[in-house]
Amino acid sequence: MTEEAAFGSLGDLEERARQRTPADLWAYVAGGSAEERTVAANREAFGRRWLRPRVLRGVESVDLRTELLGRRVAVPWYLCPTAYHGDLLPEGEVATARAAASAGCLAGFSTLSSFSLEEIAGSAPGSPRWFQLYLQPEFEASAELVRRAERAAYDAIALTVDVPLLGVRDRQASGGFAIRTPRPAGNGPTLSSPAREPLPGPPPRRLRADAAATWEMIDRLRAVTSLPLLVKGILRGDDARRAVEHGARGVIVSNHGGRQLDGALAALDALPEVVEAVGGRAEVYLEGGVRRGSDVLIALALGAHGVGLGRPPLWALLAGGEEGLRRYLGLLEEEFLNVMALAGCRSLSEIDRDLVV
Amino acid sequence: MTEEAAFGSLGDLEERARQRTPADLWAYVAGGSAEERTVAANREAFGRRWLRPRVLRGVESVDLRTELLGRRVAVPWYLCPTAYHGDLLPEGEVATARAAASAGCLAGFSTLSSFSLEEIAGSAPGSPRWFQLYLQPEFEASAELVRRAERAAYDAIALTVDVPLLGVRDRQASGGFAIRTPRPAGNGPTLSSPAREPLPGPPPRRLRADAAATWEMIDRLRAVTSLPLLVKGILRGDDARRAVEHGARGVIVSNHGGRQLDGALAALDALPEVVEAVGGRAEVYLEGGVRRGSDVLIALALGAHGVGLGRPPLWALLAGGEEGLRRYLGLLEEEFLNVMALAGCRSLSEIDRDLVV
Amino acid sequence: MTEEAAFGSLGDLEERARQRTPADLWAYVAGGSAEERTVAANREAFGRRWLRPRVLRGVESVDLRTELLGRRVAVPWYLCPTAYHGDLLPEGEVATARAAASAGCLAGFSTLSSFSLEEIAGSAPGSPRWFQLYLQPEFEASAELVRRAERAAYDAIALTVDVPLLGVRDRQASGGFAIRTPRPAGNGPTLSSPAREPLPGPPPRRLRADAAATWEMIDRLRAVTSLPLLVKGILRGDDARRAVEHGARGVIVSNHGGRQLDGALAALDALPEVVEAVGGRAEVYLEGGVRRGSDVLIALALGAHGVGLGRPPLWALLAGGEEGLRRYLGLLEEEFLNVMALAGCRSLSEIDRDLVV
Amino acid sequence: MTEEAAFGSLGDLEERARQRTPADLWAYVAGGSAEERTVAANREAFGRRWLRPRVLRGVESVDLRTELLGRRVAVPWYLCPTAYHGDLLPEGEVATARAAASAGCLAGFSTLSSFSLEEIAGSAPGSPRWFQLYLQPEFEASAELVRRAERAAYDAIALTVDVPLLGVRDRQASGGFAIRTPRPAGNGPTLSSPAREPLPGPPPRRLRADAAATWEMIDRLRAVTSLPLLVKGILRGDDARRAVEHGARGVIVSNHGGRQLDGALAALDALPEVVEAVGGRAEVYLEGGVRRGSDVLIALALGAHGVGLGRPPLWALLAGGEEGLRRYLGLLEEEFLNVMALAGCRSLSEIDRDLVV
Repeated sequence: MTEEAAFGSLGDLEERARQRTPADLWAYVAGGSAEERTVAANREAFGRRWLRPRVLRGVESVDLRTELLGRRVAVPWYLCPTAYHGDLLPEGEVATARAAASAGCLAGFSTLSSFSLEEIAGSAPGSPRWFQLYLQPEFEASAELVRRAERAAYDAIALTVDVPLLGVRDRQASGGFAIRTPRPAGNGPTLSSPAREPLPGPPPRRLRADAAATWEMIDRLRAVTSLPLLVKGILRGDDARRAVEHGARGVIVSNHGGRQLDGALAALDALPEVVEAVGGRAEVYLEGGVRRGSDVLIALALGAHGVGLGRPPLWALLAGGEEGLRRYLGLLEEEFLNVMALAGCRSLSEIDRDLVV
Repeated sequence: MTEEAAFGSLGDLEERARQRTPADLWAYVAGGSAEERTVAANREAFGRRWLRPRVLRGVESVDLRTELLGRRVAVPWYLCPTAYHGDLLPEGEVATARAAASAGCLAGFSTLSSFSLEEIAGSAPGSPRWFQLYLQPEFEASAELVRRAERAAYDAIALTVDVPLLGVRDRQASGGFAIRTPRPAGNGPTLSSPAREPLPGPPPRRLRADAAATWEMIDRLRAVTSLPLLVKGILRGDDARRAVEHGARGVIVSNHGGRQLDGALAALDALPEVVEAVGGRAEVYLEGGVRRGSDVLIALALGAHGVGLGRPPLWALLAGGEEGLRRYLGLLEEEFLNVMALAGCRSLSEIDRDLVV
Repeated sequence: MTEEAAFGSLGDLEERARQRTPADLWAYVAGGSAEERTVAANREAFGRRWLRPRVLRGVESVDLRTELLGRRVAVPWYLCPTAYHGDLLPEGEVATARAAASAGCLAGFSTLSSFSLEEIAGSAPGSPRWFQLYLQPEFEASAELVRRAERAAYDAIALTVDVPLLGVRDRQASGGFAIRTPRPAGNGPTLSSPAREPLPGPPPRRLRADAAATWEMIDRLRAVTSLPLLVKGILRGDDARRAVEHGARGVIVSNHGGRQLDGALAALDALPEVVEAVGGRAEVYLEGGVRRGSDVLIALALGAHGVGLGRPPLWALLAGGEEGLRRYLGLLEEEFLNVMALAGCRSLSEIDRDLVV
Repeated sequence: MTEEAAFGSLGDLEERARQRTPADLWAYVAGGSAEERTVAANREAFGRRWLRPRVLRGVESVDLRTELLGRRVAVPWYLCPTAYHGDLLPEGEVATARAAASAGCLAGFSTLSSFSLEEIAGSAPGSPRWFQLYLQPEFEASAELVRRAERAAYDAIALTVDVPLLGVRDRQASGGFAIRTPRPAGNGPTLSSPAREPLPGPPPRRLRADAAATWEMIDRLRAVTSLPLLVKGILRGDDARRAVEHGARGVIVSNHGGRQLDGALAALDALPEVVEAVGGRAEVYLEGGVRRGSDVLIALALGAHGVGLGRPPLWALLAGGEEGLRRYLGLLEEEFLNVMALAGCRSLSEIDRDLVV
């Protein structure tokens, strides 16, 4: 099958995808905000950590399974909820959902999807999935999205908190990218994307209503749903503590893949502070810069309960469609298993802080 | 409008300007002294700082307004006083003054301007502006410039103290640059530029009279004018303390954009020491390496009251004239507003030291 | 002689070899696992250490001789046991053994050799050599290899412990490399290479029996042979201590040349911790990144008893065959002697920790 | 004049010289030992230091004069004693001596000169100069060179101690460089160059007699001459202390420009330790990586009494002959004066440790 042949290893994936993708779409997928310092930092932070493998640990079998917010999954990673997969391939999030399900891998789906959250759920019934929520200008619109997700058997709600405004994107400003998914998009005509600009008027400059959200928003959303709530986009221990105090079941350490505040510190560099602040009262996830099996091991050793994959699944979809994503998830699983065995870990519970220096 | 189209984002600006500028003039604008270590360091110092944004802070509005030495302005930055804008475009500082005024942005104007300080003031009446003073060989000539600035309603005098002699400029030595502004220049026939070379004679080598200035010069200038005085070009806490003791109302941390002492430490690296030494008794400004919205946030978080923009406004003038500068100032304001919202800051008073690591 | 002329200095060697080698074979020789972070780190770790030479030490003679596990040798390095030299040149390990013997240099030979361990021993009788053991799925097969090595007068057994599974090799996945040595290879039809993949089946994923080895394996092997045992592939102090407690006479600090766990810390960076943990109760060797005379001095100053040479001997074989390896070993000896004299060391016992910063 | 026009600034010098020089000679001049780590480190060490200039210090005059071992000179630098200037230009060291004398700059001349030490002295009578001594296999030959230098009114003897053997030079091994100066060279037929290789024979390898020198050599040389003695090639505090204890009047911190022990630490990095160990009992000089005015200031601020210039004078001779060297020395003096004024220093005594961070 030709798409599958498109990448021979995880190391090939990005380049192969780039070759097959129109430049403006690639700029959207690959780019970040402003000078893309934070995009680079996310990756570079892994390059500063080194593994201290153990030997002769009797690794006759390796178990990669775990639970993410109580849901049993085959691997400790999930697909980050990214926007409009219909821009990448016609089957959009339906392809994504099927590939993830076949790998036993949890997938997050965005408010901004090309297919409706119900269509996505229906394409891979029973598979583990989270719904990512962008707050809407009207709270009731947000609440309705959450209720729909609960009805469609999503396992959790991930509230994105790092997008009161869309970040500044130099690459897109230069390249003229436009979303291809026709509007109204998957989740319906009432849906509103995050704003790119403040409202017109004299200073102080006013932002759209959803930017006004405070920590009480978590309480309001919890009153709407019985699904566990994750707060996505935290880089500080004090913020993580507040999320937990407001009842969040999980905290996602993330700078939105370097697409929002350029200069924000690397997600991995923020992880230890958040892990310590949370102190086991919620699950801590890490998104940003995860590419290879070693990266997963490093993040878990530093205290992440699981990691999100952002751009690589998009690359895989661009390089080989649904089958490309399947192949990617398979390669990553093989590589992580390999890394676990080489590090002397038979199960995720044997990964400890002492593995990383 | 074609000039405006010349740059799509702040990231494009430098390259677009370079393309439109004769090589010798570009060498003058872009270059620094000797090996340009300090030029690079100014920029690189921002790349070592990382932001720790706060989320869910209710950023329904963002206020960028502040006061610089008591003068209300729209944004916490100002245009650095750079020489001879008439070399960049025919309207010279008149264009600069108009663009700054329309953005509510304070502008500094150099002793070495292509237009007279009175012409500049007249082109944008009532707008906030500082006059930069290069000491003249005769004190009375300096005093007269100060008196003229006061009469022309400048808001402050910024005394440059890091140019007892002009720095060594490799690029210009190689490229043969000559100032285009015809002499006598804007501020009149009595005006004297800083010297490039010592006076002839046996050792010890003697320098021109203005190089002999000591801290008492601040007292002498204060006796001439009631305008607040800034000391521009300080990189040490002890020097900043002396400036304050002699009555300076502001201290500008600067290494002259890397154009004077090559090897001088990055302005941003000197900032914390100066902020601590001044201890709130004067306003501390930062010049050197500020390019993007994140840079402004970093500098303010490290204690700067405001920041100066050196080369970017020149790039904007070269890329698109007065309208180019307007566009640049608009883009920067949008970006800083964006950055403030993403960092969880509703006003400049919410920027604190804890935002930066 | 033309092969000998192929490299004028140690610095030329790698490039000359690359030029003469088919791309797929070069990818195999030069490559490491995944992103080759650890390959680079092994080398970079030497670049962070600096020598503090002593002067006027009366270096009228320089003695490079030492004992490795009680065997007198001319130099403190040995050839790492690398696989299938028959892929590099027709004479394979026979050439290697002869060249090493003529230089008085100890050589390690791999379980995975193109010639049998007896043929290798016979080609250079009486010369110092170690046998490297890859555990076989059946212990008896491992035991038989050890017994054969003892009968063939090998001086020690080096048990490799960092290959429960073969690492992931991007370069080979892309380049399609296949071992050229015809099977069954040198050590016979019963021989088994390390596995590249887990056994098929549901999770947890099971690995081949040899991956199940624990520290007790050392005891079992010691019961089979009276040869001293080295544990090869250790990067942690605690693992080194356990090796010693189980009777290992030597510990080889190594990450398999960056070919196994990508992201594993540099061998040189792991050395001090291992040296301290072993506390003189066994000999500590260092493999990974050793190229030049200064590298040998640095490793010995940091506590290594000797160092292994991995890729450079392969380069030498590729660049000039047996004579190329002879030339390489001669150049390295000259360079190390030079370095010793310049550092003020008359014998290896004068190398101390204080030489390196 | 065309040679003078060959470089417009100090930054141009190296490139201009390279363009005018045959490749093999350039490899000799520019190259260092092995991988040239130490060549790069010497330069890079300056790039890690930053200046903290003082302002408003009343720099009406700047005095660069100082005394080097009691001899009054115009500037705090000297020309390092480098070999065979006759290979660079026909007038060889005669041109060097004249150019240095005209700049009031001390020059060191090598045992290995194209002209005799007496010819050199005669070409610039009364000018400050040091004689660099390479120990000869017979002590009497060394003593005779010292006596000749004293008779020819050299001001000091600099005993090189970092060349018991010549370093390994990859570039020369590849490029086939040969000294052009016809033998016997300037200082006569009895002269012997340092050895490149050990004496033939079985291990331990024996070196030529001059490599056997110990600290007592300083006592023996002091018994031969009343000239002050410098020990050249020290990188450690303990060695510096011993030099002083044996009566050395000066210590030159140097790694021979990275031409001897590759991996030796940067000269500038060794300087503070040596300055502290000497504790003012001798003068400490720094050679290695000094190129620009800022470098001189940094070295002096870190405690050097003066600095040696190694490759740049050779570049100047190659680029423009005697007049090129004059121009170089003039440019450096102007630049250092500029740097002094910009740093707020009126004389060398005002340079203090606090200027550098």
